[in-house]
Amino acid sequence: MSGLVYLNGAFVDRDEAKVSVDDRGFVFGDGVYEVTRSRDGVLLEVDRHVRRLERSMAGLDLHYSPADLPAISLRLLRENKLARGEATVYWQVTRGAASPRAHQFPPSNVPVTVYASASPFTALHDKRATGVGVILLPDQRWARCDLKTVNLLPNVLAKQKAVAAGVHEALLMRDGVIMEGAATNFFGIVDGIVRTHPRTNNILPGITREVVLELAAELGITVREEPLFVDDIPRLSESFLTGTTNDVMPIVAIDGRSVGDGRPGPIAGRLYSALMNRWRVGD
Amino acid sequence: MSGLVYLNGAFVDRDEAKVSVDDRGFVFGDGVYEVTRSRDGVLLEVDRHVRRLERSMAGLDLHYSPADLPAISLRLLRENKLARGEATVYWQVTRGAASPRAHQFPPSNVPVTVYASASPFTALHDKRATGVGVILLPDQRWARCDLKTVNLLPNVLAKQKAVAAGVHEALLMRDGVIMEGAATNFFGIVDGIVRTHPRTNNILPGITREVVLELAAELGITVREEPLFVDDIPRLSESFLTGTTNDVMPIVAIDGRSVGDGRPGPIAGRLYSALMNRWRVGD
Repeated sequence: MSGLVYLNGAFVDRDEAKVSVDDRGFVFGDGVYEVTRSRDGVLLEVDRHVRRLERSMAGLDLHYSPADLPAISLRLLRENKLARGEATVYWQVTRGAASPRAHQFPPSNVPVTVYASASPFTALHDKRATGVGVILLPDQRWARCDLKTVNLLPNVLAKQKAVAAGVHEALLMRDGVIMEGAATNFFGIVDGIVRTHPRTNNILPGITREVVLELAAELGITVREEPLFVDDIPRLSESFLTGTTNDVMPIVAIDGRSVGDGRPGPIAGRLYSALMNRWRVGD
Repeated sequence: MSGLVYLNGAFVDRDEAKVSVDDRGFVFGDGVYEVTRSRDGVLLEVDRHVRRLERSMAGLDLHYSPADLPAISLRLLRENKLARGEATVYWQVTRGAASPRAHQFPPSNVPVTVYASASPFTALHDKRATGVGVILLPDQRWARCDLKTVNLLPNVLAKQKAVAAGVHEALLMRDGVIMEGAATNFFGIVDGIVRTHPRTNNILPGITREVVLELAAELGITVREEPLFVDDIPRLSESFLTGTTNDVMPIVAIDGRSVGDGRPGPIAGRLYSALMNRWRVGD
C-alpha cells in the first residue's frame, strides 16, 4: 500500500517509512500497539484506546505520552483521503533503536519509536450475515496477554491455522477454558446467560468487549464475566466474537460443529445494533 | 555502532540499514535469530547454529536457506576488522514486509527479510573469575521456548529485572522447576550429579548446553538431563550458566544466598577449560 504514514515526528511516504535494524521492535518485539477505527473521520472509542496504550506501556515500563496520537490519526485520515467512510488507524510504540543489542533496557535517553498509519477498512458485513466458523487451539501465549504488545507470534500462528482450516478465527484454550480468540474476545450464551472470560492477565482487555458489556447492561441483557469451558460448547445457544474490526461477529460453528441452530443468534444481533447505534456518526 | 551490516542481499552501512514499518519482524515479532561467536575469523559451532536456525524457521513455517550465512558472516568480520580476536555475528530472518497488516502469513511471494551484523566481543573473564549472582523470577514465556524467535519481551523484562537487582541473569521458574536463564541455560550440581533441564518445548536447545553435555561425557562427569527444582537450591554444591556469550559461567549466589561455598566451583572450571580447548583456533 502507498500513502502517508507517521514515523517519529514526521509524515512520510509509506515506502520511505523505515526503522533501524537496531530498533527493539524489530529485534525483540519490544513494543506495544493499538488498532483504532474511524468513521467519517471520527476515531471511535479513542479515549479508551489511548488509555489502553498507556496501560500496555506502563506494563513494559515504556515511556511516551500518546496525547498527540488522536490528532496525528486525524491528519493521516485526511491526507490519505480516508476522512469519509470507514478506516483503521494503527499505532505502535517501541523502545527505540539501541546498539549494541542487549536484552536489558537501553539508556533512558534513547528515544522511543512512534509509528502510525491509516488504512481503508470495509466492515465484515458478509461474514456477519452468515456468521463465522472458528477452530479451537491450545493457548500458547505468554503470561501477560493483558498487554497489547507486538510479541504476536502465537497469535500469528493461531490465525494462520484458522485461515488454513478455512475459518475466521481461532479460539485459544488454557486448561480446558476458552480464553479468547487470537485477535478477538469470545462470548457464549448458556442457559440464557451471556458469559465472557473475566479480565485477567490471560486475556486482552478488549475495548469492544468492554463497550459490549456496558451496552448489554443498558439493554437489560444479563452478562457474567465468568469463564466458558470447552465442556460448555455443546450447551451454547449462541456465541460471538468482539473486536475493533469484528464489531460483534456471530460464531455459528466451532471445530465444524454447529453452535445452537447454526445461525447468527438474536443476542449478538441486538448487541451489534446497539454498537452501531452508539457509533452513529454525524447523523 | 557504525560499520557494515548485511540486509537482504546487500552489504550496507549500519546507519542506512533499515526495514519497512510493514516488516513482520517489527509489527509481529514474526522472525527467528541466532547469535554466533567468532575467534580470529572462525565461526564457532557454526553448523549447529545453522541447524538450529533451520529448526526455528521450520517451527514457524518460515522458508529461507541459510547456506550463505556463514560466508556472509566471514565477510562481515573482515569488512568490520573483526577477523582477529573475538566477535559475535547476529543473524535474523523475518517473514518479510507485507501490507495491509494481517496476522496470517502473507502470500508466499513476499520475500523474507534477512539481516546479519558483526560486533566486537570481549569474553566475560572478570565475571567468570568471581562468579555471578542471579535472581529467580516466574517464567512468563510462551509455550514454544524451544524456538529461537524475536518474540523476546519476557526475556527482556526478566533481564532488565536482573540488571536492576545488580545481578547477571534471571532464572525462570515454571511450577517450581528452574527452566533456564532469560538468555542462558542453567546447570546445577546436587549430590555430585550435574543436572540440567531436559530438552522440551519450555527451554531453548542451547548450543553451548549441548556442547557442554558432550564435553562432560568425554571428561567422565556424570550429567543427567533432569529438572532442578527451586527446592533443590539449598542442596546445590555448584551451579553455572551456559550460553554463546557466557561460555560456562559460575553462579555463586541465587537471590542473594550463596551457592555451595559461594565461589566458582571446580566442575564449572573443568567444563570451561574443555570448552576453551575445543575452541582453540589456529594454534
